[in-house]
Amino acid sequence: MRVAVIGLGSMGMGAEKSLIAAGHAVAGVDPRETAWQALVEAGGAEGASTGAELNAPVEAALVLTVNAQQARAALLGEGGILEELTPGAPVMMSATISVADAKALGADLAARGHPMLDAPVSGGPAKAGSGEMTVMAAGPTATFDALQPVLDAVAATVYRISETIGDGATVKIIHQLLAGVHIAAGAEAMALAAKAGIPLETMYDVVTHAAGNSWMFENRMRHVVDGDYTPTSMVDIFVKDLGLVTETGLALKFPLPLATTAYSMFATASAAGHGQLDDSAVIKVFPGIDLPQKR
Amino acid sequence: MRVAVIGLGSMGMGAEKSLIAAGHAVAGVDPRETAWQALVEAGGAEGASTGAELNAPVEAALVLTVNAQQARAALLGEGGILEELTPGAPVMMSATISVADAKALGADLAARGHPMLDAPVSGGPAKAGSGEMTVMAAGPTATFDALQPVLDAVAATVYRISETIGDGATVKIIHQLLAGVHIAAGAEAMALAAKAGIPLETMYDVVTHAAGNSWMFENRMRHVVDGDYTPTSMVDIFVKDLGLVTETGLALKFPLPLATTAYSMFATASAAGHGQLDDSAVIKVFPGIDLPQKR
Repeated sequence: MRVAVIGLGSMGMGAEKSLIAAGHAVAGVDPRETAWQALVEAGGAEGASTGAELNAPVEAALVLTVNAQQARAALLGEGGILEELTPGAPVMMSATISVADAKALGADLAARGHPMLDAPVSGGPAKAGSGEMTVMAAGPTATFDALQPVLDAVAATVYRISETIGDGATVKIIHQLLAGVHIAAGAEAMALAAKAGIPLETMYDVVTHAAGNSWMFENRMRHVVDGDYTPTSMVDIFVKDLGLVTETGLALKFPLPLATTAYSMFATASAAGHGQLDDSAVIKVFPGIDLPQKR
Repeated sequence: MRVAVIGLGSMGMGAEKSLIAAGHAVAGVDPRETAWQALVEAGGAEGASTGAELNAPVEAALVLTVNAQQARAALLGEGGILEELTPGAPVMMSATISVADAKALGADLAARGHPMLDAPVSGGPAKAGSGEMTVMAAGPTATFDALQPVLDAVAATVYRISETIGDGATVKIIHQLLAGVHIAAGAEAMALAAKAGIPLETMYDVVTHAAGNSWMFENRMRHVVDGDYTPTSMVDIFVKDLGLVTETGLALKFPLPLATTAYSMFATASAAGHGQLDDSAVIKVFPGIDLPQKR
């Protein structure tokens, strides 16, 4: 199958590797020329800065842009991939976006004859690269069927949430509520340990072997212990994702005391100039403590 | 070794089973006669409502009361176990208590010739029963050595935090910050899913297979999906433990935005009459949603 991956960030690069490994002809689209050149070097069929510049049409598109605005531009905007999609080619929308954006993109693509799967993903770059992402998807059965070769290549587990576009986005947003709060809670706990004079390596060991552990604590607080804020995923991604969580609460008039608190912590870190650091750098919102330095 | 277990709640009962299985003569102390009678039936040496009522002296005591007030009364109060402890017998203080209480109890016991290990535990009743608790302990090496037979019987992992009484309590309190925030965050996420019309069973499946998972989410939100609030550990335990976290922040003049928010959620649940339910019942603070009912 000839598949375009739109948005070659860490997740897109991983997904592209999985698709190439599964034998698909992969075209990469990213405004950053270095990103799609890396794809071609990794065995991709071709690459371009916009979808319209691709040389050959594609039978499916996997969208892994940072946000809905980028996704809309890359699909439906000027120079978008629309003219290079074969008639009826399905679009797998895997960026983390709002429910309203998922519904609007689904409707606008459907009006042009392209079914969309509302299919956010989880798992991080490593699982994207090994074809083991978790996909939480909503859409008609026919759209799942049309994208089966892509799902087989990139996912270890596919959850079929419902047939309603928007439910995939909702589940991902609720997932990000947990992921974001867990990173911020990990930072708060490690900051308190630093303030109380407990060695962070010891605190990390205890928590990761006890009931206070979380996937995010184990993965991200390692970076704090190592003093290494090279981004796996950036602070600004959680400013965006917890922003989507907050908007969801506003839309449903529903209180989200922890998520809105965590949003403020990430937004504070970003406003202080740490937006491009690893998301574990949210710990820098806590003043007056000595954190480990990178060796 | 002849060991007394003081406080036969779910953790104490589990620890007592581990000690009996390891071949120790176990005496149980709990004001509730049914609790220590169950211990005797399970193969314990003897039981009593107060330490002073035990028939034979004990060579070590393991304290697993609900709080510091109960611990102090059972050790040093009228009818306390002090007169039944052999000279120099060590005390393993495993209740979750404040740093100040750990230091005061350690000093008061030392003044009477009994070394104390500041040794909070984690793992829940199941791991207590199988002798696989995680112990995060502080105290002199000689005290660790004196309690080695007890540690061998009840713990899978023993962290030696430092030689300073109070550091064990600090590490446990920071651990409880994470555990409590994770339960409250799980409740907030599941409440939002209910509000948004996502089936909770589906939400649970997705999260437990993705990066948003935590030990507490996986364990406690199962109770929400099942609509079963039979307590594993009660809401009021986290009112106490997140209260200790909040006090620690106050003592160090350190901000704990997530922990204090989670404290308010558990306190709200307790004030609404849910204090004796499973701690996952903190989800009942979210109004206007339909939660699963027990089948």
